[in-house]
Amino acid sequence: MKPLNAQERDEFFSAYPKWQKTPDRDAMIRHLKFADFNQAWGFMTRIALAAEKADHHPEWSNVYNNVDITLTTHDADGLTKRDLSLAVLIEEAAKDVMS
Amino acid sequence: MKPLNAQERDEFFSAYPKWQKTPDRDAMIRHLKFADFNQAWGFMTRIALAAEKADHHPEWSNVYNNVDITLTTHDADGLTKRDLSLAVLIEEAAKDVMS
Repeated sequence: MKPLNAQERDEFFSAYPKWQKTPDRDAMIRHLKFADFNQAWGFMTRIALAAEKADHHPEWSNVYNNVDITLTTHDADGLTKRDLSLAVLIEEAAKDVMS
Repeated sequence: MKPLNAQERDEFFSAYPKWQKTPDRDAMIRHLKFADFNQAWGFMTRIALAAEKADHHPEWSNVYNNVDITLTTHDADGLTKRDLSLAVLIEEAAKDVMS
């Protein structure tokens, strides 16, 4: 699994502006705010199952209705297509809950 | 809900030495390492349901098989008996998984 090239990065960050490049390493972060813990946990559980299925897991934290998700590929020491796939899935799941 | 007094703190931290006082605020933290993500997430889910039932939620993060949990009571601006209850429950759930 190769790190993303410049064009792949540009395309992704243009299409998904809520994802931000982390300053300290080759990873990206997204903050999500839900209505309450119930909604946040329901969302996280959907992502957990998908992550386990894909064998590609987020680094994430939760404080009540707030969820911070960092994505990177440890084996590649940076962002890869596996992170883009998981990010797109996160956006779809977030849309379901937040709409 | 009042913050814990000195005796209550001493008793808890003596009985549960894996919980550490945080240096920067009146809270406590516990690190747990599981076999894999499946086991970590199963554990977190048990705690999530109990936390929701008690309406007292942890601040926590997860990276694959690692879970960090911080407990404090925001309404009391510090540690209270609600945190001790949740911590004891976390220890019981961890014992089930890790034994």
